[in-house]
Amino acid sequence: MSTHDTALAASAHRSPLHDFLAPDSIAIIGASADPTKRGYKAMVGLIKGDYAGRIYPINPKVSEILGVPTCPTLDDVPGAVDLALICTPAATLPGLIAECGRKGVKGAVILAAGFRETGAEGAKLEQQVLDAARAGGVRIIGPNTSGMFNLHKKVNLLDLRNIKAGDIGFISQSGNMLLALVLEAEHNGHVGFSTYVGPGNQTDIGFNDYLRYLGEDERTRVATLYVEGFRDGQRFLQAAREITPLKPVVVYKSGATELGKKAASSHTGALAGSYAMTVDLLRQVGVTVVHHSDRILPVAEGLGLLQQARGKRVAVIADGGGQATITSDRLSEAGLELAPLSEATRKRLAAILLPQASLANPVDVAGSSDADPEVLARCMEIAAEDDSVDAVFLVGMFGGYHTRFAESLLGGEMRAAESMIELARRIDKPLVIYSLYAPVKPPALRRLHEAGLPVYASIEHAVRVLQALGERGAYLAHQHGQPLQPGVTPVEDMQAMFARAQNEGRDLYEFEAKALLRAHGVAVAEERVVHGADELAAAAAHFGGQALAMKVVSKDILHKSDAGGVVLNLVGEAALGEAYDRIMTRCRAYDPNADIRGVLVTPMARKGTEAIVGVVRDPIFGPVLMFGLGGIFVEILEDVAFRAIPLSRFDAESMVDQLKGRRILEGVRGEAAVDKAALVDLLLKVSSIVSAYPQLSELDLNPVIAYPDGYAVVDARVIINRAVVSC
Amino acid sequence: MSTHDTALAASAHRSPLHDFLAPDSIAIIGASADPTKRGYKAMVGLIKGDYAGRIYPINPKVSEILGVPTCPTLDDVPGAVDLALICTPAATLPGLIAECGRKGVKGAVILAAGFRETGAEGAKLEQQVLDAARAGGVRIIGPNTSGMFNLHKKVNLLDLRNIKAGDIGFISQSGNMLLALVLEAEHNGHVGFSTYVGPGNQTDIGFNDYLRYLGEDERTRVATLYVEGFRDGQRFLQAAREITPLKPVVVYKSGATELGKKAASSHTGALAGSYAMTVDLLRQVGVTVVHHSDRILPVAEGLGLLQQARGKRVAVIADGGGQATITSDRLSEAGLELAPLSEATRKRLAAILLPQASLANPVDVAGSSDADPEVLARCMEIAAEDDSVDAVFLVGMFGGYHTRFAESLLGGEMRAAESMIELARRIDKPLVIYSLYAPVKPPALRRLHEAGLPVYASIEHAVRVLQALGERGAYLAHQHGQPLQPGVTPVEDMQAMFARAQNEGRDLYEFEAKALLRAHGVAVAEERVVHGADELAAAAAHFGGQALAMKVVSKDILHKSDAGGVVLNLVGEAALGEAYDRIMTRCRAYDPNADIRGVLVTPMARKGTEAIVGVVRDPIFGPVLMFGLGGIFVEILEDVAFRAIPLSRFDAESMVDQLKGRRILEGVRGEAAVDKAALVDLLLKVSSIVSAYPQLSELDLNPVIAYPDGYAVVDARVIINRAVVSC
Repeated sequence: MSTHDTALAASAHRSPLHDFLAPDSIAIIGASADPTKRGYKAMVGLIKGDYAGRIYPINPKVSEILGVPTCPTLDDVPGAVDLALICTPAATLPGLIAECGRKGVKGAVILAAGFRETGAEGAKLEQQVLDAARAGGVRIIGPNTSGMFNLHKKVNLLDLRNIKAGDIGFISQSGNMLLALVLEAEHNGHVGFSTYVGPGNQTDIGFNDYLRYLGEDERTRVATLYVEGFRDGQRFLQAAREITPLKPVVVYKSGATELGKKAASSHTGALAGSYAMTVDLLRQVGVTVVHHSDRILPVAEGLGLLQQARGKRVAVIADGGGQATITSDRLSEAGLELAPLSEATRKRLAAILLPQASLANPVDVAGSSDADPEVLARCMEIAAEDDSVDAVFLVGMFGGYHTRFAESLLGGEMRAAESMIELARRIDKPLVIYSLYAPVKPPALRRLHEAGLPVYASIEHAVRVLQALGERGAYLAHQHGQPLQPGVTPVEDMQAMFARAQNEGRDLYEFEAKALLRAHGVAVAEERVVHGADELAAAAAHFGGQALAMKVVSKDILHKSDAGGVVLNLVGEAALGEAYDRIMTRCRAYDPNADIRGVLVTPMARKGTEAIVGVVRDPIFGPVLMFGLGGIFVEILEDVAFRAIPLSRFDAESMVDQLKGRRILEGVRGEAAVDKAALVDLLLKVSSIVSAYPQLSELDLNPVIAYPDGYAVVDARVIINRAVVSC
Repeated sequence: MSTHDTALAASAHRSPLHDFLAPDSIAIIGASADPTKRGYKAMVGLIKGDYAGRIYPINPKVSEILGVPTCPTLDDVPGAVDLALICTPAATLPGLIAECGRKGVKGAVILAAGFRETGAEGAKLEQQVLDAARAGGVRIIGPNTSGMFNLHKKVNLLDLRNIKAGDIGFISQSGNMLLALVLEAEHNGHVGFSTYVGPGNQTDIGFNDYLRYLGEDERTRVATLYVEGFRDGQRFLQAAREITPLKPVVVYKSGATELGKKAASSHTGALAGSYAMTVDLLRQVGVTVVHHSDRILPVAEGLGLLQQARGKRVAVIADGGGQATITSDRLSEAGLELAPLSEATRKRLAAILLPQASLANPVDVAGSSDADPEVLARCMEIAAEDDSVDAVFLVGMFGGYHTRFAESLLGGEMRAAESMIELARRIDKPLVIYSLYAPVKPPALRRLHEAGLPVYASIEHAVRVLQALGERGAYLAHQHGQPLQPGVTPVEDMQAMFARAQNEGRDLYEFEAKALLRAHGVAVAEERVVHGADELAAAAAHFGGQALAMKVVSKDILHKSDAGGVVLNLVGEAALGEAYDRIMTRCRAYDPNADIRGVLVTPMARKGTEAIVGVVRDPIFGPVLMFGLGGIFVEILEDVAFRAIPLSRFDAESMVDQLKGRRILEGVRGEAAVDKAALVDLLLKVSSIVSAYPQLSELDLNPVIAYPDGYAVVDARVIINRAVVSC
């Protein structure tokens, strides 16, 4: 697909989106003199916004709009056109895009809906638009988009008033979400935007392209995205991997539930996929994921302005015990910790606080600042200078002391604010501030905000910011840049095995799947394939007195247990013989046409902790590894971790650590912990195998039994990708 | 304890708190001329607040404060004193409270900290204060309280300005939380408060008393509480049971995590207990629990103003597809549903919407209202009239149409607001409104709010309000007033059995615990106690060919398996004999001094689904029943449900339904569902047994094995309450 080619080129060169997202000339196709129409509003937005480029309204019926002379058609435009805004209905689009191509228009914003999101007819029309765009070399924003703006270039195709230019870039599949953020920012008073685009149906340009553009855009400090669905998730992950080290990327992803996915599909035709998987993969590449829409702006602002935290240890300075308690709860739920303050720090605090103050973290100054708010700034400084503190969190009524206690405290508050600003510049740790006075914006809080220290009006939002700063710090310190597991060198025998299966139009047999794993160093239980009853004696002799399991070998029997194709706990040749007959009888009854190639005989696995390793080639994100504990953890609790392949060692380790059921692996009720290093090694090996064999479409190791020493793969299934020819 | 007696009296009569929470005269002990002191600020609050009662500043050193003549001591006050505000340090309190008693003061607000929350010395001082209060008949608010106000009585001991009188009552162990809510309300512009009290250490008056007062207070429409810890949880539950049918009760409880509990303890000396248990018990009696502090006010306001919902089915009317998607996610996460709109409703909607509108719920009007916002009101009306809809949720930019599209739409917006107000009055379903324009308070939204339709600025908050309305509706329809399981009539033999165990200074033997259960109709596996090897033959004969389990009987061996006191899968007399010897040998080795009374022989239980039933007598909440699935569900996932005893049938059913692992009970992988009715019956039986036998302190049925037909209690343990004498 040629979008891929273009995006690929962009990874080496500058994004082509700059050409039309910062246009020097704009044509408005369907420009209108009717003030309720988009073709009029966009012109108002450009003119009132002091756009310095050329504006060409296209309208064959009127000679001028808002004082700007029109052209009857695009062809009549005298100069070059960087960007076309198209306001006409869906059916006109294939023709108009062809016209854009002839004119050399670089990008077109298509507002019309009525494409893929409405069904098959619309999808056909959308394809025609895309074909015309490809043929003419025109890039497309939308269709079904709310539009775009680039405030630093003074391009505003949305006619939104009162938006402050700033450093938050926003790509949103919801126009209302943009409006909501704009109003929130207006109310906040300090946040501004750089570029906004509604990607709509992402027919041509997808989130990956926009992200790369925001990554390169010097006026964007934080890339923020509302996503209903990615069209090329794999490429998005690649772009994010490159950009997250440079600037924070914040994603709010809808479709967390089945209801949400259904709604997204009828809105932008998005394929939402698994939410849990998407979140894991985004975090793998350093993206900050927020789960509530009202946290998007606070988190984006905090990440844009504040230092990242080097760790999870937060020092809380509070002037009220109740809010200190609430803060402790929220920090703990967010996976953050209360930093253990050093003895020296406590002594320094004791020297400036009243005896009733609580010096253990959370520090409750308990009235010590009532007559002197500068005490709070000094506490923050003392805490920030403690090596065991990664972030400082001020909680309470700072900013409102002069209202609450005495007007004369205003001077002290302003001096405290200056000290905090100075501290923030001096120390490489974030200072996060919650004040219950934030909604009324008193002078000290305005001063803090102006100096780049945001003040939050909700403890919950502030804690989410602390969490995001900590996660970003951890990503940059430990995760980013870790070497990714290289693919193994494919083995000739295995290539031949894949080719054989492909020729026979089947997936791999269990023993073949295990052979593949074994060939690349995965610990698989020993086994023998028995092709007929006459080979049973040799198998019995081989395994001696061990208890054995016997499983049918047939490409036609997928659910071996259901078919009666599995018998366990067999000891001795006689038992093997009897089991063999039983399996053959039952499986033939189950499927008289089944092609049965014999049975697999393998020693019964030792008891241990059951785990599952899976691989899918996700239609959005490509090859993805899944790891979970067996049984109810996967089936009932959906307690699984996902990572895009290839993995780094950190990825593999964090998959294990992330499970809710990890305590099972750490050993409960006095049982020994399982060998985590061996599991990590298994995950990395699977990653390298999948990278090396494109013929492998899906893989399922279920169960893997984990032991205090190593693990054993007990069952393995490999589904073949029939589109890839084995060599 | 005499607080209990007083509170008990209150359940029959009017709360005694009215006498001093709406005082006609107030003495301020420690009144001060220093404007930074509480003894000055309180006077300002009263005078500026136009308090109509008598104010008596007590101060021996100055003759008047703010123009009010002082009295040197309380004794010198000429008239009666309803309420005393005491601003002096902790050490002065025992003497001052005694003085209050002599004067006939009804209630005293003690601001000083330095009591139980600081340790043993403080706890002693607190007890002295309580003793003095009891002796003098003075009720105590605090100590360690932020104070109180009653705005309808114009009593404001906090000197908080700009608080609107209204109908939200607030009891908060955090003064900062009050301030935060007051500022949020000021910003909201429509919410006001009735009475506030900081219960502080709850030395005398506890949350249960305050709740009862708010329940009776005609000026309070919603009782809202920030709780660090209950002192008498059992009595609180009783009060809530009586009040929640009359008015909504909203609780934010801190101590959700270990960090939070620790912080609460050093703040108000609160014993936080188990958060999960507290939440379950509060919900059992109809309390709305919010988990985030920034949702307290939105939820309280919504519950105060809006109709409760009769069910979970929400109709969403949105003017943007992205926010419709987000809303679907949040509704689903909150356990709410998208109402399936009837064919008739869809037709009515289609008649007023553009063809591109999405008529399936969420309804996306897709531009249909851009030129006529009244379309939104009509959609709401059509949805509200659908019988399958329990609540209507408007999502989007209503209120901002005249800003976003054309000034001329303001009239339509105002008419739409009037239609919504009229609809809300006519229809007995809640209309919940989210608008992204809420922060800028445009005219239509102000009009809605003034007419009692709150407008939310966050989808997340609005969904939490919908959830609370639905939960309250469900409580009132299904849960409230359900008969509580009466106690069984105690059986004489069982009373004798308890007495025997008490005399012998031990808990019940397993076979005794099972006898107790069996005596009251609980299904317990058949069993025999074998006192010596000579009785084994009879036991073997009795059980025939069944596989048996053998377990040691000894009061000294609590962990039978660890001691080697359990052997399973025994068939025949010889096997029993061998096992008996083995158990005796191992248990004697384990504890040479153990008093071994023989063994219990019982048939091996059929395989089924393991569950656990437990009872504790919680120090805060009294007898509480716990139910969960066995194994990792309890041990790793803490997936358990709690209910205060006695239970209603609804309580028992909802315990089972509430478990995350309930799918296990419903049958997974083609297994049959377990007999839920039998489990519910078991929970109710346990409730009645616990109610009837105060000698029973703790009970542990672990495991109970649930089958498609019934269940079996396989092991039972009863801990005896040594303080209760068996009769």
